[in-house]
Amino acid sequence: MPVLRDGLTAVFEPRRVALVGASDQPGKTGEVFWRNLSSFPGEIVPVTSSAGAVGGQKAYPTLTAVEGDIDLAVIVVPAAAVPAVIRDAGAKGVSAAIVISGGFAEAGPEGIRLHYQLMTAAHAGGVRIVGPNCFGVQNCDLPLNASLAAGTPRGGGGISLVTQSGAYGMAIHSLGLDEQIRFAKVYAAGNKADIGDAELLRYLADDPASRTLCFFLESLPDGRAFFEAARRVTPRKPVIVAKTGRSVAGVRAAWSHTAGLAGSERVWRAAFEQAGVILAHSGLEMMDVARALDAQPPPAGRRVAVITNSGGTGVELADLLADEGLEVPELSAMVQDELRPLLPPFASPSNPVDITPVWSRFAELYPLLVDRLARSGEVDAVVPVLLHRSASDERVAAGVRNAVARLRADGVLVPVYVCWVAPRASRPNADLLQSGGVPCFEWPERTARALGHAARYGEARARVRWSVQAKARARTRLPPGWLDAVAGAQVLADAGIPLVAGKTCTNADEARAAAEDLGYPVVAKVLHPAIVHKTEAGGIRTGLRDGQAVQMAATELLALAPGAAVLVQRQATGIEVVMGGLRDPQFGPVVVVGLGGIFVEVIDDVALCLAPIDDEDARHLLSDLRGYPLLTGTRGTRPVDLDALAAVIRAVGDLLVAAPEIAELDLNPVLATDGGCVAVDWRILVENPPAQDEERVGFSPRHAGESALRPS
Amino acid sequence: MPVLRDGLTAVFEPRRVALVGASDQPGKTGEVFWRNLSSFPGEIVPVTSSAGAVGGQKAYPTLTAVEGDIDLAVIVVPAAAVPAVIRDAGAKGVSAAIVISGGFAEAGPEGIRLHYQLMTAAHAGGVRIVGPNCFGVQNCDLPLNASLAAGTPRGGGGISLVTQSGAYGMAIHSLGLDEQIRFAKVYAAGNKADIGDAELLRYLADDPASRTLCFFLESLPDGRAFFEAARRVTPRKPVIVAKTGRSVAGVRAAWSHTAGLAGSERVWRAAFEQAGVILAHSGLEMMDVARALDAQPPPAGRRVAVITNSGGTGVELADLLADEGLEVPELSAMVQDELRPLLPPFASPSNPVDITPVWSRFAELYPLLVDRLARSGEVDAVVPVLLHRSASDERVAAGVRNAVARLRADGVLVPVYVCWVAPRASRPNADLLQSGGVPCFEWPERTARALGHAARYGEARARVRWSVQAKARARTRLPPGWLDAVAGAQVLADAGIPLVAGKTCTNADEARAAAEDLGYPVVAKVLHPAIVHKTEAGGIRTGLRDGQAVQMAATELLALAPGAAVLVQRQATGIEVVMGGLRDPQFGPVVVVGLGGIFVEVIDDVALCLAPIDDEDARHLLSDLRGYPLLTGTRGTRPVDLDALAAVIRAVGDLLVAAPEIAELDLNPVLATDGGCVAVDWRILVENPPAQDEERVGFSPRHAGESALRPS
Repeated sequence: MPVLRDGLTAVFEPRRVALVGASDQPGKTGEVFWRNLSSFPGEIVPVTSSAGAVGGQKAYPTLTAVEGDIDLAVIVVPAAAVPAVIRDAGAKGVSAAIVISGGFAEAGPEGIRLHYQLMTAAHAGGVRIVGPNCFGVQNCDLPLNASLAAGTPRGGGGISLVTQSGAYGMAIHSLGLDEQIRFAKVYAAGNKADIGDAELLRYLADDPASRTLCFFLESLPDGRAFFEAARRVTPRKPVIVAKTGRSVAGVRAAWSHTAGLAGSERVWRAAFEQAGVILAHSGLEMMDVARALDAQPPPAGRRVAVITNSGGTGVELADLLADEGLEVPELSAMVQDELRPLLPPFASPSNPVDITPVWSRFAELYPLLVDRLARSGEVDAVVPVLLHRSASDERVAAGVRNAVARLRADGVLVPVYVCWVAPRASRPNADLLQSGGVPCFEWPERTARALGHAARYGEARARVRWSVQAKARARTRLPPGWLDAVAGAQVLADAGIPLVAGKTCTNADEARAAAEDLGYPVVAKVLHPAIVHKTEAGGIRTGLRDGQAVQMAATELLALAPGAAVLVQRQATGIEVVMGGLRDPQFGPVVVVGLGGIFVEVIDDVALCLAPIDDEDARHLLSDLRGYPLLTGTRGTRPVDLDALAAVIRAVGDLLVAAPEIAELDLNPVLATDGGCVAVDWRILVENPPAQDEERVGFSPRHAGESALRPS
Repeated sequence: MPVLRDGLTAVFEPRRVALVGASDQPGKTGEVFWRNLSSFPGEIVPVTSSAGAVGGQKAYPTLTAVEGDIDLAVIVVPAAAVPAVIRDAGAKGVSAAIVISGGFAEAGPEGIRLHYQLMTAAHAGGVRIVGPNCFGVQNCDLPLNASLAAGTPRGGGGISLVTQSGAYGMAIHSLGLDEQIRFAKVYAAGNKADIGDAELLRYLADDPASRTLCFFLESLPDGRAFFEAARRVTPRKPVIVAKTGRSVAGVRAAWSHTAGLAGSERVWRAAFEQAGVILAHSGLEMMDVARALDAQPPPAGRRVAVITNSGGTGVELADLLADEGLEVPELSAMVQDELRPLLPPFASPSNPVDITPVWSRFAELYPLLVDRLARSGEVDAVVPVLLHRSASDERVAAGVRNAVARLRADGVLVPVYVCWVAPRASRPNADLLQSGGVPCFEWPERTARALGHAARYGEARARVRWSVQAKARARTRLPPGWLDAVAGAQVLADAGIPLVAGKTCTNADEARAAAEDLGYPVVAKVLHPAIVHKTEAGGIRTGLRDGQAVQMAATELLALAPGAAVLVQRQATGIEVVMGGLRDPQFGPVVVVGLGGIFVEVIDDVALCLAPIDDEDARHLLSDLRGYPLLTGTRGTRPVDLDALAAVIRAVGDLLVAAPEIAELDLNPVLATDGGCVAVDWRILVENPPAQDEERVGFSPRHAGESALRPS
């Protein structure tokens, strides 16, 4: 039996599994896992030093003592014993280990020591690690239940779930059972000591059984790799992320202007949107969207038909759909004329289609209307509201289920989602629908939010690009620290960024001569390494209209600090745009664009995008700004040259990619007119590029004892 | 038995009730109501022409034939027969009638005719009408079940529900049963032909049994009266409104600048906020907030303690609470030191208090922590997360319930809400908690939203003022149409609104002389009745710095239209503020404030308030603007005189109240500086004041057949 080389293949599709810490003793974790693993069709080999046999099967004292190959070891022994087990696993040629045990990096200094021992052994032996401190893994189709969740997983589902929080993952799992969800694979990531989310995403992207990918994240240290993988997956499969820790998310301390506007939550929001990833607000919402997208085709547009037996509920749903950016359009006269004879008197064939509480006809009308509306060509999704009386009628549920099956059989790809408003006693009918692939969402808000995500995904997957190439140029590495204005100007000019004409001068006469050359009016700015914030230091003079004014200004500026110089620039005009770049620890180079002045300062109007970007991305960034109408012309002003602005934004992104030592870059402002744009002030901070070696030993110790699996 | 004079007293607390259309025949509405009314402790008198007896009780052919007094008639006969029944009711001295029957204004021309017949009979006979086209009424304490919902209502609850949509109301009612909610009174408003929401609000405000008032509204024709009643109730009892029809809400057509910015959804949002009304997004959210506020005291602040057995869920809940503007503050070292010894190793006493999955200690720790945290003085609400294992342990539910009971017994008013994340099988434990007054909300989002509303209500009820008096002045009524600039200036000046100094001139020399008097620079504006939009007509000249410039400008402006005059004004400077007023058809006079220029035009940054207002309201309006920092000083500018601005806003409100014929008023811009503010341009539209007589014959025909009670 050749060794399974890919770690995640060994994790999800092992042929022979060892359970290290196996036990017969009820209450022990080793016994829970022995039981849960019993449905595995391959062989489970018990490893334990405290018994000769487990479950009537011969037990081995160590992994190395096992006869024959092992693909996967599931480890439930106490933390202190784990590094030695991993060393054995390496010696035995085991491809991967799921370390359920807690007591590692999340558990103080001693745990951190064990973490490094564990990882050293894993790297040395070539063993890939799931966890530690995790709830385990399921491949529901095999089935393999190497997790704490009891029972044999039911296969045949397309949803794969990666969850960092084991306990919340189990709760989601329970929801899944209640809602008739079938999973393909479930993976509790725990401390993520080795295998990261990006690697999982790449694996699941190529896994035919996984059609809908869900990630419940608390941290995303490999953000950039996840982003790059995601933009390749989302055109084919939905990727849904719920990320917690937003309110306490790591905000870096020492950032100046542009970077300070970004904040890491904004960066990952921007990254996910750019990659077509669906960002759910919570774990519940994530699973709702997954149910919607796994069971039904995504909507091709934003037009929704609502069928209701309660006018009030139909109106509320229409409101909530509108909040999500969806429409409930009036149906054409033709369709209304077709529907009207089918409906009772006083019913409305408009949309929402309100059939009124004609109880006796629910079983006939709901399936009929689902069918007609889906085939009408006038809507992209159909939502029957099953409320109270219609929900309690089993024939309605069966009829809708059959109608949807017929639509699919006929190749009609309009999705159908049920809005479910009914007492608990009616749940069996929802189960009937859901097990037949028609998702039911309780109450209009859950319905509208799931449908909103589904529709936006339908649009995004057509828009997402697999990759954008930076136009990198050969260049020498910059020295650390704030670049002076002249050096900065050189870097920017080399990157193709237009700057206002100017000259650096060391005395007042030189300044006057420069002004004569440039043409009036001019601006004079102090240049000195100690003066980073020129405005606050009184180091800028504007509107200088003659030689005398320039001389006077230059004299004053030169006196601000010993050794100061003065930069004389042509005074440009235009709409103030702020552009910048920053290097996010998780996501790498990010371009930030905002409108200057009060827009940035008062209403915090900025848009972000991961670099590199192309001109289309850059135009998209500009149009995302609330103040965008200022650029396209308002109050009688002429529109600015958006192509020129976009080219500068793209150039900023390319520069960040080409020069990883640039930690922060500010063009503030760039002045835009109908004739182009120029940067008139800039700051560039150079640092040593970020190290690349932290990822593999990273961990997320936020929730000490999240799994509490300190095996007894 | 003296007649019950108050219509709603007769509706909710009748002593003797007639059921008109009573029947013994299963399937008939008259039989359903006969059954549902059977729990009423007083006498139910059957009225029907088709049987001599119903339920073994003597039936009368008409209301007038009944012996003895009747307080309330419940009417289920076909619509065409209803007007005659109401005439009989009037003759009989019946105080109120609940008209269940549909087929009135919602059902086309014939129905509208019946509506007028019904209301004419009701007015003539002094009979107050509930409905028509409604689901009926319950007084759960009496009990009186004059509604379609089966069974005997369970009394003892404090929530009273008024619902315009009968079917949705029934769904909410079912939710209530599932969630152990007890109602005080339930009222399905149907077409609202007579009794409006404001009257109901006033009645329920004085009803001791109704502690928490819920309104599920589709329309609110008596908006102003509702607003005035609400601001008197909310300091004592929460009023929660869910209003649907937002996306199609009646937007008035012909409004200019300021009014166009308002839009009626904004008006009722502003009105509800001003009155301390909780605005729920949906019926479900309304009932969640009601459960939170009826069962527990409102939070006194925004600090929340979270207790969890899953770190991931705790973080998600903290995020969602932050989205609601709440805090999950770190507990003091003292409290943490007190908690730490109680907790297992690796548990976090910080906040969220993460007890880790120590299953064996859940029953001990949850009640203990609820108690300690509520008494800590460091938080305003405590949220235990019961997730999976902790939810399935009945001892946890019982312990938390008892802990909360002890807190209340000791006078500790910190509310406790459970965040419930568990499979259906555990619901009996949630029921145990809820029946004991501890509300459980499924999943973190519902918990956070309910708690957010509860906390905001806790703040609002201290802030809401019962009434504000306008400083009305004696004045003559204005003529309809757009006022000319001079007449407008007079109205504004009389109202105490400061205007920039200026003079109206009819020739260029006069203009020059006026400019000399006023002092340069000046502005010249054309005045002509046909030129309403001066800027678009090229009718404004600014920056006129000498007599020649003024003469030239005046000559050009006078030539724009025959008979034109020119207004010469001192050129003022300052930050542009837009102020205005409009008269909303439902809510009456409304003041609108915004920052001028791009703030209003590009980002639609306006705030609204119902007039009259006082200076405090006016300051509040200004601080609600996103651009508010511009007024308080940014980029080195000096703060403007906010008191002066507030005084002008208040004066605009007073003027709208004093002059109901003003339909629209625009001060655009008012220029604000640190030395005060002046209006430099204004427009006033005068119309005939709105009629007051439509309210009582109004109806809401949106949902034809909502109740479908066309009695058979």
